[in-house]
Amino acid sequence: MTLGLAACSASGAGQSLRGTGDLGVVIARATGELAVIDTTNRAFLSKVSGLGDLSHASVVYSRDERYAYVFGRDGGLTKVDILAAKIVKRVIQSGNSIGGAISQDGTLVAVANYEPGGVKVFDARTLELIVDIPAVPEGGGARSKVIGLVDAPGNRFVFSLWDHDEIWVADMADPRKPEIQKFQNVGRNPYDALITPDGRYYIAGLFGEDGMALLDLWHPEQGVQRILGSYGKGEDDKRPVYKMPHLEGWAIADDLAFVPAVGRHEVLVIDMTSWREIQRIPVAGQPVFVMARPDGRQVWVNFAFPDYHQLQVISSESREVIKTLPAGKGVLHMEFHPRGEIVWVSVRDENKIIAYNTETFDKLEELALESPSGIFLSARAHKPGL
Amino acid sequence: MTLGLAACSASGAGQSLRGTGDLGVVIARATGELAVIDTTNRAFLSKVSGLGDLSHASVVYSRDERYAYVFGRDGGLTKVDILAAKIVKRVIQSGNSIGGAISQDGTLVAVANYEPGGVKVFDARTLELIVDIPAVPEGGGARSKVIGLVDAPGNRFVFSLWDHDEIWVADMADPRKPEIQKFQNVGRNPYDALITPDGRYYIAGLFGEDGMALLDLWHPEQGVQRILGSYGKGEDDKRPVYKMPHLEGWAIADDLAFVPAVGRHEVLVIDMTSWREIQRIPVAGQPVFVMARPDGRQVWVNFAFPDYHQLQVISSESREVIKTLPAGKGVLHMEFHPRGEIVWVSVRDENKIIAYNTETFDKLEELALESPSGIFLSARAHKPGL
Repeated sequence: MTLGLAACSASGAGQSLRGTGDLGVVIARATGELAVIDTTNRAFLSKVSGLGDLSHASVVYSRDERYAYVFGRDGGLTKVDILAAKIVKRVIQSGNSIGGAISQDGTLVAVANYEPGGVKVFDARTLELIVDIPAVPEGGGARSKVIGLVDAPGNRFVFSLWDHDEIWVADMADPRKPEIQKFQNVGRNPYDALITPDGRYYIAGLFGEDGMALLDLWHPEQGVQRILGSYGKGEDDKRPVYKMPHLEGWAIADDLAFVPAVGRHEVLVIDMTSWREIQRIPVAGQPVFVMARPDGRQVWVNFAFPDYHQLQVISSESREVIKTLPAGKGVLHMEFHPRGEIVWVSVRDENKIIAYNTETFDKLEELALESPSGIFLSARAHKPGL
Repeated sequence: MTLGLAACSASGAGQSLRGTGDLGVVIARATGELAVIDTTNRAFLSKVSGLGDLSHASVVYSRDERYAYVFGRDGGLTKVDILAAKIVKRVIQSGNSIGGAISQDGTLVAVANYEPGGVKVFDARTLELIVDIPAVPEGGGARSKVIGLVDAPGNRFVFSLWDHDEIWVADMADPRKPEIQKFQNVGRNPYDALITPDGRYYIAGLFGEDGMALLDLWHPEQGVQRILGSYGKGEDDKRPVYKMPHLEGWAIADDLAFVPAVGRHEVLVIDMTSWREIQRIPVAGQPVFVMARPDGRQVWVNFAFPDYHQLQVISSESREVIKTLPAGKGVLHMEFHPRGEIVWVSVRDENKIIAYNTETFDKLEELALESPSGIFLSARAHKPGL
């Protein structure tokens, strides 16, 4: 029996029976590693290496919250078992990719590609290629770079074609033969997009002109509308844009969206019933991520260089900054616990992540990690669009 | 090595390394069992017995989604390891209890008691009693029966005192010495309550009079307001009330709440900005649970005897019934997958649970279980108030 237990333990190296609802991963970009974090004990459990180029890497989760699908910039798609801390499967599916999504039912993983363009859809279990959607315009032509790929209710994927100014909705009811609805002339060069937390509105930012493109997925027959005509680079007193803000960072509280301004030290407040800007909140720098605490009462903001050493917290009710936190140099990302009591912040240049109590703003924990960037908790598994 | 693997398997009876995000439990009331369900493979994994009287039992989850805390009517509080399919700890903490809650940070489990009254708060890890809150009025008197116990952001518990017409908010920052804010004369005999999904509004139904009591937890200084003066039993053409509806079944979509009418074949639509009733939707019977699909596009309704053999689906947009499903006799409860693609329905008198595709309404699965009642998926771990 001693032999038996030893064999058992050996075969289970790095594995132990535990729940996965309080786990997450942090991207350590410089070393190409993924650190698995236990958010209850606030400690790293393990590291997984061999993931390739992790700059701008993003992650989605299987619905059992055991597997992280990591989308690397080098076209790598890696399925990581966060319980066993090992790579289950890794495919280089393109030359250059920019994020992905998992279908509502958890069976399909889609990747948005730059080189060559298009979307590839894989079996979430095996990473077998199910279908390649080349993103070629009507009448033929080159594949477009694809950006802003998200999942939507009804087992659909929605994405934008940078080169061809289109938004496509792919219904995956028959995964090998997706039914694709195409919206043309949505605006010049969509560069990023988001879907609202309820999965209803898909909004793409435009690089080639001001304004944004809005698709109501409950009413695709209404087509794509243009909203927020003044949003973008066409400001009178414009400053250099250090970084285009992340659109997936939109914070939505009640009927208001809190949106990073482009190139300005402001967070914009948008009324989502009229899709009009109703206020601008002055902040400490050019906002990058603008994220709502899960209860919607606070909105947290980080900033582009040279103001990227701090965080600001906005009250969604008074719509003013209520707290400034000097988190450290190179604040790149934030992730809330699903019930909102804690936020984790990656501070790249100081090689650490920090946990703050969101009610008292006390620093609860600092964990060392080389060049941390994105933080992705497993609770994302349960949320559309994440 | 064969010995080794056999020993391994034996030592891990009922246990296997797996994620917990796609698990759940179903209460089998007649046999006093809990059935653990795998919602990905749509199969029961195991059963756990020895849980006492499970009539009206409810469940909350640890934040790692491994442990289910089961609140039994007999005052039993049982911590069940759903991975290992075994009881970790069980305490009989009162003579008669009516549900409970887990704190935002996952460290405390609170139980609402009838006999004797009050709230007991336990260490979520050990079930050690941390504090007993007797629910005695100012100036002394008997303990009140406590109902409508929920967790709220800021690590608070909120609950109502049936006998004394009060609502209490307990801040658990110092768990052994909770700071309690008391609201008096909220209305006669609060009998059940809910908290909105964002954790902001606590709403108690009143048994002793019409209307409801509303507390805005963002503004407790405003006190408790009375809303929906016509809600309750004081209807002109009133019919016998077969069952007081469950308030935790309120569906909230956009700024509208879909609410079961008392004693009438109607679902009421409430505008949550004004807290006024704006519409009544005719349905097939007296509604019991009125629950929104996670994306808010549909509202599902089940009914009291004698109309409890069917389900109806309301479009939150057109606000009319779009589907009637003859699920079978004794539809007691519904639970959506966290991304909303599937709903599980317990059909007590036909000894089964059914999975429906919420988009096509196709029946995907039927699983046999004796007298199933409440269905609780582990994704509740990540949601305030559940």
